[in-house]
Amino acid sequence: MNKQSATKKSSTPEASPLDRLSMSLDTDMKQVNSLILRHMDSEVALIPQLARYLIAAGGKRIRPLLTLGSAALFDEKKISGTYPLAAAVEFIHTATLLHDDVVDESEERRGKKAANLVFGNQASVLVGDFLFSKSFQLMVESKSLEVLRILSQAAAIIAEGEVLQLATTNDIETELPAYLKVIESKTAALFAASCEVGPVMCNASKEDTKALYEYGLQLGIAFQIIDDTLDYAADPEKLGKNIGDDFREGKMTAPVIFALEKATPKEKEFWERTLGRKEQTEEDFSTAMDILKKYNALGKSLEMAWTHARKAQACLNNLPDSSMKTIFHDLAEYTITRNF
Amino acid sequence: MNKQSATKKSSTPEASPLDRLSMSLDTDMKQVNSLILRHMDSEVALIPQLARYLIAAGGKRIRPLLTLGSAALFDEKKISGTYPLAAAVEFIHTATLLHDDVVDESEERRGKKAANLVFGNQASVLVGDFLFSKSFQLMVESKSLEVLRILSQAAAIIAEGEVLQLATTNDIETELPAYLKVIESKTAALFAASCEVGPVMCNASKEDTKALYEYGLQLGIAFQIIDDTLDYAADPEKLGKNIGDDFREGKMTAPVIFALEKATPKEKEFWERTLGRKEQTEEDFSTAMDILKKYNALGKSLEMAWTHARKAQACLNNLPDSSMKTIFHDLAEYTITRNF
Repeated sequence: MNKQSATKKSSTPEASPLDRLSMSLDTDMKQVNSLILRHMDSEVALIPQLARYLIAAGGKRIRPLLTLGSAALFDEKKISGTYPLAAAVEFIHTATLLHDDVVDESEERRGKKAANLVFGNQASVLVGDFLFSKSFQLMVESKSLEVLRILSQAAAIIAEGEVLQLATTNDIETELPAYLKVIESKTAALFAASCEVGPVMCNASKEDTKALYEYGLQLGIAFQIIDDTLDYAADPEKLGKNIGDDFREGKMTAPVIFALEKATPKEKEFWERTLGRKEQTEEDFSTAMDILKKYNALGKSLEMAWTHARKAQACLNNLPDSSMKTIFHDLAEYTITRNF
Repeated sequence: MNKQSATKKSSTPEASPLDRLSMSLDTDMKQVNSLILRHMDSEVALIPQLARYLIAAGGKRIRPLLTLGSAALFDEKKISGTYPLAAAVEFIHTATLLHDDVVDESEERRGKKAANLVFGNQASVLVGDFLFSKSFQLMVESKSLEVLRILSQAAAIIAEGEVLQLATTNDIETELPAYLKVIESKTAALFAASCEVGPVMCNASKEDTKALYEYGLQLGIAFQIIDDTLDYAADPEKLGKNIGDDFREGKMTAPVIFALEKATPKEKEFWERTLGRKEQTEEDFSTAMDILKKYNALGKSLEMAWTHARKAQACLNNLPDSSMKTIFHDLAEYTITRNF
């Protein structure tokens, strides 16, 4: 390890809240990772091949970290009881990515060519199903019906959100409430469930459990708004996905919706052609960026994300102080300032 | 209702074992159907639209009937406890069909145009995910961790089997054991689980539970062998799917594997071209049929199916006699003689 990366990994004040979360749960996360590897194994060789391609590619493991951390908030001795659940939420997330890639025909994911382009759509659908089933096998290991209820409900809401997103894509009449419904379902529901199962496994009070659910929900909403904003503003190397994907697919996300609220008839025609009918020329993305700038649409999106991040932080108010509480608090802010 | 269909529905000796199963569980099945309708509802309109398209198309509901019937074998008073599970196994099956259709690019399903051709691949994948999640929510209603263990394991095995099938498709070196592994996983595992959860919910003995599991497994294997045989021999109007689908896709099923065991070099070339490389001309299917006839490949497939149907029947030997036991016994035979 060179000096620079060693510095980066030590617990200096410069370490991001996500790094601090990751470092404070390092031992636990190693157990979760080996659980993940064990459960994605199969004698059908294509399964570990494809799963490894995606899961080994990394990602920040933010959902399993939230599960472990939300247990740590209440009872450090019970963290190990959430290992299978931490693995389960990562599997649900990965299955969703696999099915998303098929659906979106995206070209890059986590900085690599999307799995469906390497292994084919068929394999992506079926290995997604496999990981999804495995996530339920892992949940059963928790022996908690309440946890199973929470996570199976989250899974249904995610799927519902994905279908709703499909229905709003290319529909330039989509307004903010429908957009919020989509991101609450497809992203925030799993963040919320990831944070809720921790206190459940620690037998925390109903109020505290509810607070963690709400924290995850608001964090997830903020996270997705930023994700959608970065799609018009990020450095593709850091984000690990193409900039302009949402534009090309005609996805109705916050920046575009803010711009559409103020659109002149000519601009509305532009959005209708580019997003509604997906008739795009090379210079359209840059025109889109100009319109977004004109209405401060990215700034407004950022502001909306801030509102939800602050709501997330407020959910922590009644919890006793701890280093983990500080990390969770800072993480909400980091969700906004990140470019991961 | 005209006279003919009324006659068909009454409990005459001509009623098929499946009709008898269906009639004896008529009241229960109505409850299950309303549970199915309720759980496939969503405010995201595309979900009930697509789900209804497929589920309302019917099918024989054989899996939920097996769940109800396998409870009836042990304790009639506990049948109602299996309603959510009966709905769950139908949802798992339907989700699999939806994802299968995307994968196989099939053109017809249950006598109608395949859902993916009507609603698009994207919707089929996502609504499949929704139904799959809903099946887990239904299972949680059973409040039995053992049931959740059984069904989540079955779901993982199904997905594994589908991936294995993908890997063997177009591979003319595929032999019987690999084929059996595929159909055991993709079809028989769910039949087995459907039959196993009944006795579990009735607190039946381990031996009896094991016997029902094994009955379902053998029944499912027989069922799938016949399905694969009918793909070369059925009346498409009755089967509700195209004849020759497997041939066109290059699926390695029992009839072809039997023919390949005896193939002359010229015939092997034929299979390599048509199934291996999927280079097919219009007359190839009729040539394939001639080769199958030459080696009695359909007869051998039928014989193999019989072996498993008889094994299924033998699993019932130690159960006390009952009208349901007779129906289960006859059903195994009917699996062979059916053309549904």
